[in-house]
Amino acid sequence: MAVGLAAPHDLFPVKGIRLAATYCGIKSDPTIKDLTLVEIAPESSLAAVFTQSHFRAAPVKLCQQHLSTEPAPRYLLINSGNANAGTGEAGLKDAIACCDAVATAAGVSRDQVLPFSTGVIAEPLPLAPITNSIPQLLDRLDAGNWLEAAQAIMTTDTLPKAVSQQLEIDGKTVSITGMAKGSGMIKPNMATMLSYIATDASIESEQLEEMLAQMVKRSFNSISVDGDTSTNDSCVLIATGASGVQVDLAHAVFCQALQSVFEQLAQAIIRDAEGATKFVEVQVEGAASETDARSVAFTIAESPLVKTALFASDPNWGRFIMAIGRAPVTHIDTDLVDLYLGQVCLLHHGLPDPEYREALGQAEMSRSEICIRVNLNLGRSMARIWTSDLSYDYVKINAEYRS
Amino acid sequence: MAVGLAAPHDLFPVKGIRLAATYCGIKSDPTIKDLTLVEIAPESSLAAVFTQSHFRAAPVKLCQQHLSTEPAPRYLLINSGNANAGTGEAGLKDAIACCDAVATAAGVSRDQVLPFSTGVIAEPLPLAPITNSIPQLLDRLDAGNWLEAAQAIMTTDTLPKAVSQQLEIDGKTVSITGMAKGSGMIKPNMATMLSYIATDASIESEQLEEMLAQMVKRSFNSISVDGDTSTNDSCVLIATGASGVQVDLAHAVFCQALQSVFEQLAQAIIRDAEGATKFVEVQVEGAASETDARSVAFTIAESPLVKTALFASDPNWGRFIMAIGRAPVTHIDTDLVDLYLGQVCLLHHGLPDPEYREALGQAEMSRSEICIRVNLNLGRSMARIWTSDLSYDYVKINAEYRS
Repeated sequence: MAVGLAAPHDLFPVKGIRLAATYCGIKSDPTIKDLTLVEIAPESSLAAVFTQSHFRAAPVKLCQQHLSTEPAPRYLLINSGNANAGTGEAGLKDAIACCDAVATAAGVSRDQVLPFSTGVIAEPLPLAPITNSIPQLLDRLDAGNWLEAAQAIMTTDTLPKAVSQQLEIDGKTVSITGMAKGSGMIKPNMATMLSYIATDASIESEQLEEMLAQMVKRSFNSISVDGDTSTNDSCVLIATGASGVQVDLAHAVFCQALQSVFEQLAQAIIRDAEGATKFVEVQVEGAASETDARSVAFTIAESPLVKTALFASDPNWGRFIMAIGRAPVTHIDTDLVDLYLGQVCLLHHGLPDPEYREALGQAEMSRSEICIRVNLNLGRSMARIWTSDLSYDYVKINAEYRS
Repeated sequence: MAVGLAAPHDLFPVKGIRLAATYCGIKSDPTIKDLTLVEIAPESSLAAVFTQSHFRAAPVKLCQQHLSTEPAPRYLLINSGNANAGTGEAGLKDAIACCDAVATAAGVSRDQVLPFSTGVIAEPLPLAPITNSIPQLLDRLDAGNWLEAAQAIMTTDTLPKAVSQQLEIDGKTVSITGMAKGSGMIKPNMATMLSYIATDASIESEQLEEMLAQMVKRSFNSISVDGDTSTNDSCVLIATGASGVQVDLAHAVFCQALQSVFEQLAQAIIRDAEGATKFVEVQVEGAASETDARSVAFTIAESPLVKTALFASDPNWGRFIMAIGRAPVTHIDTDLVDLYLGQVCLLHHGLPDPEYREALGQAEMSRSEICIRVNLNLGRSMARIWTSDLSYDYVKINAEYRS
């Protein structure tokens, strides 16, 4: 029951990127694709960030290893339905075997293939279904397959998530297209579950890495469904250069378009969060530091009592001040705090606003898109993050996930 | 639906403590008591710890003020149904008026009265019902009223929580009796929602404060229902000395009995946690520091995905390693981690245990009392904390709390 999220449309091909997806046999339902191959043209640059979990899945470890060597990656192989995490040495061998299968069939080296997995943790990866499907995927590679790929990387997602922008730079057309998956176990720490964004602009490697770090901070690293960070989070940004247009961090128009793609993908994950009935933005301003602002915002966003009040459309704002009160920051002056629901003031300088009426709060909480705004009035830093509510369906989905 | 929790029984009076409770009119149902008065004999010593929330409720602020002055407190006034939190200057005036009402009627000074409130946040305290009931409560004070008091401090609790121990010291009988309330918004930080423990042993003030700090750490500060810390958490330890027996921190037998009372009260809160169907102990050992051990234990205990797996009795232990992986500690060597469900080994030195079978994990997860045990094999520190699962009823209770 995604909140304000439509199926992707108008996905522009990115010159230099071809994709294919198929059902290989990991998932139980053969009508649902579970394996994706992405081909990247030679001379492209690629940057990636991964989960900060102490437990990194086998494919994450292998990606990081392959990225530390030359030459640049030429293929991404992505399976859904199995995370190949908590699988020990055997899991690493399976991930290597997947890369070998692509390398052999495509005539590249093993370390030019990056493997990604998402799905159930702690179960062995079914290897043969994956490796047997590689030749077929190579045959079917096409620049127009972004939607098919976005569908094939889904797990508990109810809708595929993909976003596209085109812009004119120096009289030439530049495309940016990205896809993401993720619905639960979402508090990415450096990246989301899985996300791949490509452009045919040309971007120098170091610039691309810095660009990815900046984009991720205000998109995938600013969302939380349940505070749970996955073992497999990965985010990849590719610049093929095939448009013939060169850009860098100083190119405001390009960076704005790229940021918009990242932000829409991150928000799509929240809109499709497990059991979500609300899309919630938490804004914290007037903080002493951005770290403090983010800390207060995430404490509100992840409080089970705030989340159940959101689900109930109950303007029980005592829970908001409870959450602000327990935020792990050094100093909050409660006599300075302003609190708003949308445009409705609840608390002004720590005191209940005399104009506030329950009906006003009720109207705001009844919306499907809600904004909780806090001004700490302590400094000039701010943060904006996105979250969902905690519903019966969140419990249902996660209590029945493996059954 | 408390897990393994019976109604209190055999509550021994504590010499020097008298209690009374009544329905005064805060709650809507007149058959449910909502106001409690506790009288403390002169010459008693008292120690208290309070919430670390930035937003402290009015009664908490007033308690701290009254405790900073001589003479020692003689009365505790506790209302349930309204937290008098987020109520600004008016809330503080109301709390003062409550203390004044007791002081006048009992012939003590205002700062000898400590006020406590628990219930809905951000609504004005109904003052007249409280002050009007003081004379009646003073008339009815009795040493045998612990159960009545434990009932009157409840909010969403389904059972009263009170524990009692008697021991012989130097041929004399010493009693320890305590009561607590709390069911949601439970991650006490220095204390639980409300808890009052009294003994008729004589304990010197500084010793009593140190004793309280030690007891609280391994009881109320080692539990979490939802990670949410209340604005009103308070824990009070009283030593009346009326038994004529003097003890201190070096008295192992007394301290052990006192620790047992604290631990049973803290566990009772978890057993009666909102929507709980499981009572879960999380043990983390082999940590580099106690802080690390507690941090890993609380990350497991508060993960919504772990909690929904517990509710579903699903041995989906990938979620346990996900939670360990995201614990905010500097270093975990995943190749050293051992993971157990009860006596069943899931992971040995980071690898799935070859003896493990799903049926073994299933049997452990199907119990109503579950132990998750982690050995980080990095050092000698450990922690043991208690938590509950996340059920449909948790969402229901908290979505419908004010309706």
